[in-house]
Amino acid sequence: MCNAPDYTIHRHHHHFGWDNSIVPVQTVAPGTTLEFECIDSSGGQITPESTTADIAKLDFAKINPVSGPIYIDGAEPGDAVKVKIEGFGPSGFGWTANIPGFGLLADQFEEPSLQLWHYDKDKLGTSAYGPGGRVPLKPFAGTIGLAPAAPGEHSVVPPRRMGGNLDIRDLAAGTELYLPVEVAGALFSMGDTHAAQGDGEVCGTAIESRMNAIVTLDLVKGANLNMPRFTTPGPVTNHLDQKGYEVTTGIGDSLMQGARDALSGMIDLLCAQHNMNAVDAYMLCSVCGDLRISEIVDQPNWVVSFYFPRVVFE
Amino acid sequence: MCNAPDYTIHRHHHHFGWDNSIVPVQTVAPGTTLEFECIDSSGGQITPESTTADIAKLDFAKINPVSGPIYIDGAEPGDAVKVKIEGFGPSGFGWTANIPGFGLLADQFEEPSLQLWHYDKDKLGTSAYGPGGRVPLKPFAGTIGLAPAAPGEHSVVPPRRMGGNLDIRDLAAGTELYLPVEVAGALFSMGDTHAAQGDGEVCGTAIESRMNAIVTLDLVKGANLNMPRFTTPGPVTNHLDQKGYEVTTGIGDSLMQGARDALSGMIDLLCAQHNMNAVDAYMLCSVCGDLRISEIVDQPNWVVSFYFPRVVFE
Repeated sequence: MCNAPDYTIHRHHHHFGWDNSIVPVQTVAPGTTLEFECIDSSGGQITPESTTADIAKLDFAKINPVSGPIYIDGAEPGDAVKVKIEGFGPSGFGWTANIPGFGLLADQFEEPSLQLWHYDKDKLGTSAYGPGGRVPLKPFAGTIGLAPAAPGEHSVVPPRRMGGNLDIRDLAAGTELYLPVEVAGALFSMGDTHAAQGDGEVCGTAIESRMNAIVTLDLVKGANLNMPRFTTPGPVTNHLDQKGYEVTTGIGDSLMQGARDALSGMIDLLCAQHNMNAVDAYMLCSVCGDLRISEIVDQPNWVVSFYFPRVVFE
Repeated sequence: MCNAPDYTIHRHHHHFGWDNSIVPVQTVAPGTTLEFECIDSSGGQITPESTTADIAKLDFAKINPVSGPIYIDGAEPGDAVKVKIEGFGPSGFGWTANIPGFGLLADQFEEPSLQLWHYDKDKLGTSAYGPGGRVPLKPFAGTIGLAPAAPGEHSVVPPRRMGGNLDIRDLAAGTELYLPVEVAGALFSMGDTHAAQGDGEVCGTAIESRMNAIVTLDLVKGANLNMPRFTTPGPVTNHLDQKGYEVTTGIGDSLMQGARDALSGMIDLLCAQHNMNAVDAYMLCSVCGDLRISEIVDQPNWVVSFYFPRVVFE
């Protein structure tokens, strides 16, 4: 961790959904460093004692709480908030679930499933996956965002132009994220911390894990940013790419179907190579495999590829 | 280069499009290593003397020739051809063009543009881009494929389940590619060699570059592969990721529009940061920037990200 925080936003200061009428829990000057106690995306409903049966009992009104909001002095519509992600204090416990109705292959995986993870919160490194393999960890915040200008409560589930549930796995320590401001004070909140995730978050969950996050909030006046952007301080796959990848493809005139086909191909490959159950392979893909668009110009067929890091099994 | 080739397929042994009635130029046993002289994707129409005016004169009947086909003894429908990509002998000259009607932002970039590249064919490393920056090189074959079962000639432009114009930038030295066989003998051809390309090939062209390619063709009987897959021997972005990335996002309910928005955001950023023309930034993005699907499950909005390697300018 780098900068020491000036404020701690405790976990009971959380809210559900985005709403610009929520009273800020703190007002800060630009350049302030804060520590956020982030609750996991189940809102604490999944614990080390949970079983698959608990998936059916989830109260979705408590899903994806975010800690905040923070009023940033001087922030106005048209500015950008610059979020320097200083670091994370992980909890050592996480979970991954197949939740019926969620996920890229929800039509094929209709039964709930739950995997619990216990990892070394200090050393991080890798974490063993019960059905097989070891997954490299890289903590990040799945949800980082600002309040929208539109009044009322807006679901936290979809990401928006002010950020939110972006689930971009490279919003990790050292990254600088820029978010478009829509309301006075910006109203910054974050949560939904993950110990690891692949590009796509294909089964709908990552290694969901309660942790603390330290960020420095700054302002770029008049940035007129259209969508979020970020800068990474270095390579983003060094923690998992040293052994190379197994890659499957989906080829056709739909990027969505291509993504589904590439993922299905990888699930089949992992099941064949490692004697896994399909749902276990699906969840493993979600926490460490990456969806990439290899080609998007050779009309009428595009190529979407799914990259699975060989280091998980080698 | 690894294995020494047993055969050389000379550049005059090329064809346009895929057609299972094309007479093979060579019959080989599984396990044979061959060197292919690959013509560039313009079929030699773009030369070191070419100018932007030559883009309008391109004869599209000569686009994307592939060298071959090779009949592999014993190959039958249901098998897979395993292509070990041994290495490349690059020519040192390449080109990148915006060709009206092609590319992810064809509606915004309607005027032709051409950039020529001269690179060290032995050391590779990076190549200077005229409008600014240095692009890391990694040679690969854009088009590697087999003849389809369906009779007649099929355009070479779209990739298909037997491969073809995949434009996957990681089909580089050391990678093992598996392609589904649809006809007896498989009828393997390759061409469209590139000195560098980002995931997506967003402007429609890479660093198009004539080069020789050495591959070993083997068979996996009864593989029953649905789509192409491949295995990389190590990391795939080590040549460009050491300084990290600038990343822009596209958020919404269409992956295609998300890809367009993320790319537009990066073009705007490069223009602002490096005083480039938009079309130059667009072509630069095509040869070294990557489209990734960051999130595809947070209904109804997906996140597509465009990763531009900072090493190009730092």
